[in-house]
Amino acid sequence: MPSEPRHVWVDGALADADARHLSAFDRGFQLGDGVFETLRARGGRSTELDQHLARLRASADGLGIALPPTAEDTITRGIDALLKAEGLATPDGDAAVRITVSRGPFLGRGLLVPPGAIDGATVVVQAWPVTSVPAELIERGLHVVTSAVRRDPSSPLGALKTTSRADHVYARIEAHKAGADDAVFLTIDGYVSEATTANVFCVRGTRLETPSLDCGILAGTTRDWLLGWAGRSGLEPIETRLLPGDLATADEAFLSSSVAGVLPVTRYDAHTIGDGKPGQWTKRARADREAFIRDGSGATTT
Amino acid sequence: MPSEPRHVWVDGALADADARHLSAFDRGFQLGDGVFETLRARGGRSTELDQHLARLRASADGLGIALPPTAEDTITRGIDALLKAEGLATPDGDAAVRITVSRGPFLGRGLLVPPGAIDGATVVVQAWPVTSVPAELIERGLHVVTSAVRRDPSSPLGALKTTSRADHVYARIEAHKAGADDAVFLTIDGYVSEATTANVFCVRGTRLETPSLDCGILAGTTRDWLLGWAGRSGLEPIETRLLPGDLATADEAFLSSSVAGVLPVTRYDAHTIGDGKPGQWTKRARADREAFIRDGSGATTT
Repeated sequence: MPSEPRHVWVDGALADADARHLSAFDRGFQLGDGVFETLRARGGRSTELDQHLARLRASADGLGIALPPTAEDTITRGIDALLKAEGLATPDGDAAVRITVSRGPFLGRGLLVPPGAIDGATVVVQAWPVTSVPAELIERGLHVVTSAVRRDPSSPLGALKTTSRADHVYARIEAHKAGADDAVFLTIDGYVSEATTANVFCVRGTRLETPSLDCGILAGTTRDWLLGWAGRSGLEPIETRLLPGDLATADEAFLSSSVAGVLPVTRYDAHTIGDGKPGQWTKRARADREAFIRDGSGATTT
Repeated sequence: MPSEPRHVWVDGALADADARHLSAFDRGFQLGDGVFETLRARGGRSTELDQHLARLRASADGLGIALPPTAEDTITRGIDALLKAEGLATPDGDAAVRITVSRGPFLGRGLLVPPGAIDGATVVVQAWPVTSVPAELIERGLHVVTSAVRRDPSSPLGALKTTSRADHVYARIEAHKAGADDAVFLTIDGYVSEATTANVFCVRGTRLETPSLDCGILAGTTRDWLLGWAGRSGLEPIETRLLPGDLATADEAFLSSSVAGVLPVTRYDAHTIGDGKPGQWTKRARADREAFIRDGSGATTT
């Protein structure tokens, strides 16, 4: 069990993690009316911070949450302060960082906030030590199942990373009940979308396939990196529509996310993927991504 | 502008409304990992409290949020204490009450909470004076538009009233931008579902039509009451699938919700409903529902 955070950064200042920080009237608590980003910081350096902050602002804009023009600077300073306070800014520090922005506290009632009724967004930064994914799990690979929750690719909120995440919580509980490690959402027309906190990839011959942006996915920063990595590494990157059968019959499969990086998938519903062990491309992608996070290099280990 | 609440009830005790009540690690704030109910209390008496508490527990169960067996009693006492503190328990007191339950604060990271990692759910009760819907709005009727957000009737979360409400906030902003009062969701196969905080009804001849439970709706307590009221009042209650054209060509249309009661709809997208004025059945439904809330009578005003 990793140690629990001792601090949290709330609206410009560090606070004790076990204090009370927020109003019960906060729209984030009341309505999931917020957005977030999760990223990895090694040695005190946040990986792909600019991309995460750009997506945070795009998500906030999409929901009409006003972020001041200086929010990026403020949040960056907040991350630095928190990593230091948590002892995670050391050269070998390895942290998962979450930035959460809600519309703020509103003492009135209703979905619509009148202009001027909220002073400003609530901004929270949290950090946890990254506990290595257990070696046994990397060795056996993840088992994933199909969630009963489906994605509508036409949703105007599809590209927004909102804190309205009950669907994701539910799907993760579904997976847990099925004895699996994660769940994959399908679109309403039956294509593979994404896992609860990760993008999905398949290797088939020398093709690296992943659901295209019209499959109800969030364009993960690690996904973007992997599409570039494939081209440099001898795989043809393909964004396409994948049926569940395509995933089940792939040579290799893996999930990608900012904090966990690349995680092999060896079982999907009742199907064994490939020979049931993490594949060679998957291992290489994981190693290269970890190297990139560690020292910022994009070089492959060819 | 109604006066702002001075108190809020959090986890068993009254607190100042402008205090800090919650941890930033609360799953409600982090993930919209919570459920809620909104109800109306007149003269200190909560309308249909049992139904609301039953639905709250069903929603919590659906998300796997553990509520103690005594939660209903505790929440009922919380409502009473808060209404008194806010001066809303007087004979002419008229309050909107919201009960919000989240999974609670979790200092760890991730969608799945290990067993025992959370002491208990966070339970919040809020109350506001019901400010009468402006007479002009009742006179002209609401204008509603179709949201770009669609509902998947097969969602396992469809019957759960979760706090993951970004879709609803978004739709209400859509309506506001279109100069309308509310938005209506359609299902992914094109049927009318519900408005952002209300069920939808149409009057056609002597039929009272409303989307059936397989249209991605929440079964509102006011909807249930209206279906019974119709039978007593000379209307045939019909739960069915309605196309947008059915709503546009109805003789009358209205929305129903716990706090606002029955609200006439006179415009839907580009269509004028009926003669563009609130209909007679709508007015009668509104009056009868208000009488029921006021003195608990179910009698119609025939």
